[in-house]
Order: sequence, then structure tokens, then C-alpha cells
Amino acid sequence: MSLISEKTIERLILYRGLLLQANHESESGIYSHQLGRMAGFTPAQVRRDLMQVGYTGSPARGYDIAKLIQSISALVDPAEKREIALAGIGSIGRAILAYFQGRSSLLEITAAFDTDPEKTDRVIHGCRCYPVDRLSEIILARGIRTGILCVPSGAAQSVTDAFVAGGVRGILNYAPTRLIVPPDVYVENRDMIMAVEKVVYFSGPRTGQRKETG
Amino acid sequence: MSLISEKTIERLILYRGLLLQANHESESGIYSHQLGRMAGFTPAQVRRDLMQVGYTGSPARGYDIAKLIQSISALVDPAEKREIALAGIGSIGRAILAYFQGRSSLLEITAAFDTDPEKTDRVIHGCRCYPVDRLSEIILARGIRTGILCVPSGAAQSVTDAFVAGGVRGILNYAPTRLIVPPDVYVENRDMIMAVEKVVYFSGPRTGQRKETG
Repeated sequence: MSLISEKTIERLILYRGLLLQANHESESGIYSHQLGRMAGFTPAQVRRDLMQVGYTGSPARGYDIAKLIQSISALVDPAEKREIALAGIGSIGRAILAYFQGRSSLLEITAAFDTDPEKTDRVIHGCRCYPVDRLSEIILARGIRTGILCVPSGAAQSVTDAFVAGGVRGILNYAPTRLIVPPDVYVENRDMIMAVEKVVYFSGPRTGQRKETG
Repeated sequence: MSLISEKTIERLILYRGLLLQANHESESGIYSHQLGRMAGFTPAQVRRDLMQVGYTGSPARGYDIAKLIQSISALVDPAEKREIALAGIGSIGRAILAYFQGRSSLLEITAAFDTDPEKTDRVIHGCRCYPVDRLSEIILARGIRTGILCVPSGAAQSVTDAFVAGGVRGILNYAPTRLIVPPDVYVENRDMIMAVEKVVYFSGPRTGQRKETG
């Protein structure tokens, strides 16, 4: 596999999401300028990205949507069903469990962890919940490599360490803190307060600051 | 005010979040290389960003943390308390209401909207809920300029249009779709499935693809 940057992967995943929607509208072909407009990128950027998945399309009819979805999926999807662990069954953790349930055929949150005995040893939104002190043991036994972190910031680093000890190599971090991880562990930070602060800044009465679309 | 890019604002908000944590640990000064390491940027990038808030620090003692937090806040925070509207009181919407409650003194979600009569005309996590057909009217009357979108993708565009008609100029979009908005409306997209897909890709068995930290 060639070297593909994080930003390219992010755009490819976005294109696929948009194409899956477009697909529902009985269109069979799409041009780079159309996809670019939907995604907020230039047609040249779209063509460069799609060249990386090895699908170039025809100038006359554009890209075949179904084939393009297939090509992107072949690149970005895991070869088989992938289990995901979630730590922190508070309001955000529960919402993610509920939101994920049945939404993806390839990705499934199969183990959730919390310190609160009221929340463990039961099933919440289809997911079995365990005490957090069994985290490393359970994810190691199951070969889980992806974790979603929804614990309070005070617990974020210790749970991260348990994720890493259990073999996790990618963390989606909803805790409002930065995590210290080994160089081969990927972290995507998604703090909600910081996201709102940013949107509030750009929705405020403008005094000349530059605006970009997200 | 000078022109400050979206990426700079995002980094400044991150620095402030990190500094607020560092502040708790009884440190009074911080160097650009320390802040850079915490945030995942170079010391030069940190210094460039902090020059934009007009606070340069002393080479010997680094930046004064309290003053730096103050300087960043003066730039990125609204001048007064800002109301935020939320549409879609499903699992994600409820989680955001719960998470936000009391967490910020300047930002408050003061109106939530849904189509389900079971969820409206009551208070959920401290926030008054209304029928979605009153959205434009209510946010216009209150001067609300920021919206959080948590509705299913099928309703996302129509609720976006109602936000925009009511005067919203910034939208935090948790719906798995791209929104069509006028050029003066800022959108930050936060689809959870795409975020997980990306993290799963980077946590998979590596076959040589480039890895970056998030």
C-alpha cells in the first residue's frame, strides 16, 4: 500500500459518506466538481484524492458512484468486522453507544467500561459493560485495537494507559484533555466544549476576521 | 482586529484548554516548547500563534500562564454571555445538554428543539425545550447566533434553513451530512461515524501508511 496521509484518508471517508447519500437519489454518475462542491474542496483536490484509490472515471460520464464507493471502501475499511471498546458510560458514552448501534456492518462497539458498579455487568444499547479495571485484560483477549474515550479528564490518562497496555493503537478522545501516548498510537481529539467555543467565535458579530468553511 | 485564520483560532482555543489544566498544577510559567509538546505543535508555531494575541512572554521565565489565559480569552471569547440553540433532542442532543450544563460561564444552551411533543414544553438538563416549528421565531427573538445540530440526516437541511432564517451564523453539525448554507455562515462538521472510521483506519494493522497524531 502506498503512503496516504491522514488528511487524504479523512477526505476519502467524507467523499464516501457524501456518495452514499447521493446514491440514494438515483444518480449513477458524479463529476469531480460536483463532489468537490458537496465536500468543500476543489475539483483538482477531489481528482488527486480519487487517483489514490485507483479509480479515475471517464471524462464524459464522471465517476460511477457505486464503483467509487466500492473503491474507497476497499482502501479505508478493515478487511473484516472490527470490534471497538468504549470507556466511560456517562452521557456522552451512552449517546455514542446508542448512536452506533446497528449503524455500521463493519464497526461494532462490543465492550464498554466504567468504574460505577451500577453500570457494569449489564448490557447498554446492545453493548456488554465491564468494570474498568478489567479493560486491558478484555481488549487484549479480544484483539481490540480501537478505543473511544469518554471519561472525565481526571481519569483520561490512566484509562488511556490501560487502552495502550491492552493493545489499542487508535483512540477517539472526547475527554477535554490531551493524552500522552507512544508514537505508534493514533489519537483523534474531539472535545465538545472547544468545538463550541470555535463555532461561537466564528458566529459572533464579525469585526473583520477571516472566515473559512468547516 | 487583525485577520486570524480558523486554524490559528482552533490552536489558541486548544492552548487555553491545556493552560487551564496546567494552571491547576501550581505552575506559574510555561515555555513555548512545553506548550508545543502538550498540543502537538512546534515551539515556533506556538510562538507565532501567541504573538497574534499580543503576549510575547520573557525568554527567561517563559509565558505567565494566568496572563496568557487572559490574553487568549480576550481574543476568542465573546464580550458577554452567549446563548446557544440545540436542535434534535435524541441521544447525542441530550448528551450535549448534560455535558454542557454549568461547564461554561460564557456559553449556555438556552433553547432546545425537537419534533416529538414528548420532549418539548419541558426542561431537560436545565434547558427549555420547544417544538421545532418555533425554532426561527424563538432564536430570532433572543438574538441567538450559534446552533448545534443533532437531528437525523433527513431533517438536517430543513432545520439548518430554519437556523439560518432565525439569524444563526455558526453551526456545529453532528448530523452525518453536509449542509448547504449561505457564504457568511460557518459550519463545523463533527460526524461521529466518520471520526470512528478514520481512527479505525489508523489503528489497523499497519501496512506502511503514514501516521500522524491528531
